[in-house]
Amino acid sequence: MKIIAAKKLLKANDKYARENRERFTASGTYTINVVGSPGCGKTTLLEALMENLGGRASPAVIEGDLASTIDAQRIESRGIPVVQINTEGACHLDATMVAAAADGLDLDGIDLLWIENVGNLVCTAGFDLGEQLRLVILSISEGDDKIVKYPTIFQKADVLVITKVDLLPQSDFNLQRAESDMKHLAPKAKIFQVSARQGQGIDELADWLLRTSHGE
Amino acid sequence: MKIIAAKKLLKANDKYARENRERFTASGTYTINVVGSPGCGKTTLLEALMENLGGRASPAVIEGDLASTIDAQRIESRGIPVVQINTEGACHLDATMVAAAADGLDLDGIDLLWIENVGNLVCTAGFDLGEQLRLVILSISEGDDKIVKYPTIFQKADVLVITKVDLLPQSDFNLQRAESDMKHLAPKAKIFQVSARQGQGIDELADWLLRTSHGE
Repeated sequence: MKIIAAKKLLKANDKYARENRERFTASGTYTINVVGSPGCGKTTLLEALMENLGGRASPAVIEGDLASTIDAQRIESRGIPVVQINTEGACHLDATMVAAAADGLDLDGIDLLWIENVGNLVCTAGFDLGEQLRLVILSISEGDDKIVKYPTIFQKADVLVITKVDLLPQSDFNLQRAESDMKHLAPKAKIFQVSARQGQGIDELADWLLRTSHGE
Repeated sequence: MKIIAAKKLLKANDKYARENRERFTASGTYTINVVGSPGCGKTTLLEALMENLGGRASPAVIEGDLASTIDAQRIESRGIPVVQINTEGACHLDATMVAAAADGLDLDGIDLLWIENVGNLVCTAGFDLGEQLRLVILSISEGDDKIVKYPTIFQKADVLVITKVDLLPQSDFNLQRAESDMKHLAPKAKIFQVSARQGQGIDELADWLLRTSHGE
């Protein structure tokens, strides 16, 4: 596991994002920026999707956290290449951090590169990392009003994944309301419902991501 | 309900925080800055505490949100004075926003002023609002590793409230681990466990907040 102290890597983000995207395209690496609140289930979803995709794609992960290597250790224990970015207080990843992390990976051997952003439903919205797909997570336990309350991030989503649907029976979360708010805000975004714990919806999401990564 | 567009109110935060604190002290208004992730249960906890405290304290609320007046409407429907701050994308409240919001309240008639910050476990940590107490929420559904992963905000907490403990049976959240991490990081912080939905722990927290607001 490589660890990068990223606070000093601040340059013009968009230029670096473009360069990252060109680099990922050149190496045939499909890159997914995974964003959502702290505790919405980002790492757990990644684990379930990588398990499901198994030999169908060669994955790697860039983990963004303020501090700690907890998530990177979870990924590494599965034998998957991982680079940890510790932002040292910065509230989101940026393209320079991702470029530095990509230097620590053998991109030619990686089909699917997951970038797990810092848990933050606000600041992550403004920073293109050079990804091909932005996957935004909303968990049932957060409540169905979050799309209206944090519109910027949802508006920029290519995919909305509603996680922890196994908690629906204990919740007053209104799926119809959330999906309707999302369709209003981001009409082109795909919407999936999953429970990583119970396996629900993982097949469908994994298959769709794989097809999408192949340009289908 | 008053609505303030706050994006342009950026000045030296600490000076304004000091002025806010002097002003709140002069009017006998005890002020609590409530922070936590999106969907951790900030508004629901406030509703439960204000219901419990009933005639024992005159409350008011300052609501911070990127957009919408959803939370302010919930508070206003209870007949409680509320000022909505819409940050228009800013990821945390600051002291100038709170000063502007306080202008819309009759502080002399308010014993307990709740400031519900933007849902954000990172950026809210750096901004003193002039409060007397900082209450940080961690919900069971977010997972027990968040204190280690987002240390800055927890280190600055006067009180940690662990919410949604009714979800413990469906969760692998380790309360002992969370409390031990918190005691390591912020030894002086009080820790409460509550379920606003089931009423568990609300009496104890409300009584403690009232006594603390009286300087006991």
